[in-house]
Amino acid sequence: MTRLRASYLIETSMRPADAAAIMAGEQSTGTFVKLAAETDEFSRRYAASVDDVTSIQEIEGPSLPGAGVYPDANGKVTWRQAQIELSWPLDNLGLCLPTVLATVAGNLFELRPMSGLRLLDVCFPPEFLTRYRGPKFGIDGTRRLSGVHKRPMIGTIIKPSVGLSPQQTAEQVDQLCAGGIDFIKDDELQADGPHCPFEGRVRAVMPVIERHADRLGHKPMFAFNVTGDPELMRKRHDLALDLGATCIMVSLNSVGISGFLDIARHSQLPVHAHRNGWGYLSRHPMLGFSFIAWSRFWRLAGADHMHVNGLRNKFCEHDASVIASARSCLTPMFAPPHAPCTVMPVFSSGQTPEQAWDSFAAVESVDLIHAAGGGITAHPDGIGAGVRALRHAWDAAAQGVSKMQAASESLELRTALEFFER
Amino acid sequence: MTRLRASYLIETSMRPADAAAIMAGEQSTGTFVKLAAETDEFSRRYAASVDDVTSIQEIEGPSLPGAGVYPDANGKVTWRQAQIELSWPLDNLGLCLPTVLATVAGNLFELRPMSGLRLLDVCFPPEFLTRYRGPKFGIDGTRRLSGVHKRPMIGTIIKPSVGLSPQQTAEQVDQLCAGGIDFIKDDELQADGPHCPFEGRVRAVMPVIERHADRLGHKPMFAFNVTGDPELMRKRHDLALDLGATCIMVSLNSVGISGFLDIARHSQLPVHAHRNGWGYLSRHPMLGFSFIAWSRFWRLAGADHMHVNGLRNKFCEHDASVIASARSCLTPMFAPPHAPCTVMPVFSSGQTPEQAWDSFAAVESVDLIHAAGGGITAHPDGIGAGVRALRHAWDAAAQGVSKMQAASESLELRTALEFFER
Repeated sequence: MTRLRASYLIETSMRPADAAAIMAGEQSTGTFVKLAAETDEFSRRYAASVDDVTSIQEIEGPSLPGAGVYPDANGKVTWRQAQIELSWPLDNLGLCLPTVLATVAGNLFELRPMSGLRLLDVCFPPEFLTRYRGPKFGIDGTRRLSGVHKRPMIGTIIKPSVGLSPQQTAEQVDQLCAGGIDFIKDDELQADGPHCPFEGRVRAVMPVIERHADRLGHKPMFAFNVTGDPELMRKRHDLALDLGATCIMVSLNSVGISGFLDIARHSQLPVHAHRNGWGYLSRHPMLGFSFIAWSRFWRLAGADHMHVNGLRNKFCEHDASVIASARSCLTPMFAPPHAPCTVMPVFSSGQTPEQAWDSFAAVESVDLIHAAGGGITAHPDGIGAGVRALRHAWDAAAQGVSKMQAASESLELRTALEFFER
Repeated sequence: MTRLRASYLIETSMRPADAAAIMAGEQSTGTFVKLAAETDEFSRRYAASVDDVTSIQEIEGPSLPGAGVYPDANGKVTWRQAQIELSWPLDNLGLCLPTVLATVAGNLFELRPMSGLRLLDVCFPPEFLTRYRGPKFGIDGTRRLSGVHKRPMIGTIIKPSVGLSPQQTAEQVDQLCAGGIDFIKDDELQADGPHCPFEGRVRAVMPVIERHADRLGHKPMFAFNVTGDPELMRKRHDLALDLGATCIMVSLNSVGISGFLDIARHSQLPVHAHRNGWGYLSRHPMLGFSFIAWSRFWRLAGADHMHVNGLRNKFCEHDASVIASARSCLTPMFAPPHAPCTVMPVFSSGQTPEQAWDSFAAVESVDLIHAAGGGITAHPDGIGAGVRALRHAWDAAAQGVSKMQAASESLELRTALEFFER
């Protein structure tokens, strides 16, 4: 029988196997009083099962407050972390992503035996591809629409995040396109506010982009933030599509899986998936989600690009975590002949040309968007120099040319590396 | 100028006022390099402002990992918790709930200066009621449809959570209705799985409920779990409505705000809002959301009933937190003549008649659903006795009759109190 598998990091003063059994019961057939209908045959057929329990370490005390304390037969209390795997029969669970979310990440995180619980990964069987199709564009489609091949897309963000009028936004887009940018995104704070309405913004920006596209022979990609009420997202997409846009952006946590499915299915454009709010899902290492687990839902649901933060970012995330996220975006979720559901990772946050070398070394790929805000526009010689410096850095990194060598060969890169080192 | 206000609990080794200013910048006009366009006039008009900073306490060390360390002029590092208030001009922000979520709860929780950040409350100006209407039914509408007045609705959950066929579900509903139940809900794990498809379940359950309604003169309310892909949620609602159902259930975290807006607007039935997954948003006291802040989004978006856990629940939540949540559900979000957006709190999790007295004392209201699973069905004298015991408990509590006195007057209540005390 095909099963959906999920792995967790748990922390408890129970025997980890007992705690895992409680999780499996809570998320399938159980209740706190054993009912007559729960026969063994019934459990075999419908219950979640504990497939693996691997002890990791003992720790001094509980990571999260509120957990129960379970002494052993000698009265000793030991707090342990373990990795466990549960699985659910598809026969009972079905193929609905929102229901999978309620099952693998529902009423688990506050179970009393747990002083920590984090979803590490979810292994979706390929049956899910009969209902969800994953990214419509992905890496190849994004490259086709943007005309950028065999190197990262150099991206940026409209800043200030809020306050620019449609006309001012278009002027900034004009400068960025003149400077050679490949990809521009709205800020997640800017969707359809009174001061910069969506329609006005698209109408002001797209003629500028079309003009540059005529000049360049390929169209810089602008991800218009359609995030909002569901019918408005569809309308905004339709308007953007009509006016020649080649990408929409959606804030995943603002919209949720169900709303995202609606717009992703409707969309005829790549969906740039923004993860703002990710911190509340992941900041504590013993709570919430790993990016790898969480991103699989959105990949299956139709995200084409996913934000993964950047190396030496301005947030709290470690580089190792950023790298693991980016690599997972580029690793197929399903083996051929199924759709791989790979997505383009988006590096951003405090990025400058300086991060190109170890970003490349970490992901061993140029199938990504490297987005820099101030890291491009604050280049002392202007936006064009900022874009070119980032491109030079990636060309060098991908060709195995060292940072010092590359800097000696490009004044714009050298200036950038010196300026942002400050 | 009207502003949206949000309060936070923060923890940092910076001066709290400086950390608050970084939050305001990040969530409005800022970027990590100051741009030319950011004039003072510009900031006054569009930027978020820090309206209050109240120090709470110094603590020994950071609650969350990854935070920056900021020594004072003497090289001393002090970790502090503070409550702060930020506000945003509506003129710039607009009235879009998903955008508000990206603004007040976006890229904040992983800001490097913060070793803790929790959204405590959001004060929506009544302008939001021009776009969102709040609960369509709320307390009065729920009472009207269910015919239960001047006392709590006695509720329960279909258990086992999964594994029952539509026919077995209907048989359980028959027993529960025969026992006098007011409210029954699907489990959140049960939506439209192969073994118990939604349509089959509604078609099996509703004739049973209609038969009891004819007998009773009022219709027990069944919350059918419509959670899923957006178009399927609407179809499921329509089917349930056609077949005489009086409530639908939605798992908020599985669906997200945008998907929820879609089904809540479409719905002609009260929406029972399930908060499964709430633990990952709230379990760490220095991260995520308070229920009061989080629930305001769903109340405005159209939830009619909201789960608040229960006193002495089987999860980790303290009673004080449960009480604060329940009281906030019953407290208007807006003053007359605006819609109050009050919702019916749902007490559940390890509930028995024993909790009626202090639940009533805490909320000073009977406008709630008290849901018990095993707390009803495991009553030694059967389901009817279980329902009546819970009703007796609430009647006594509301009339100021003590637990001992009530137990002496009702054998079914006495039996329940003794049985569940074990």
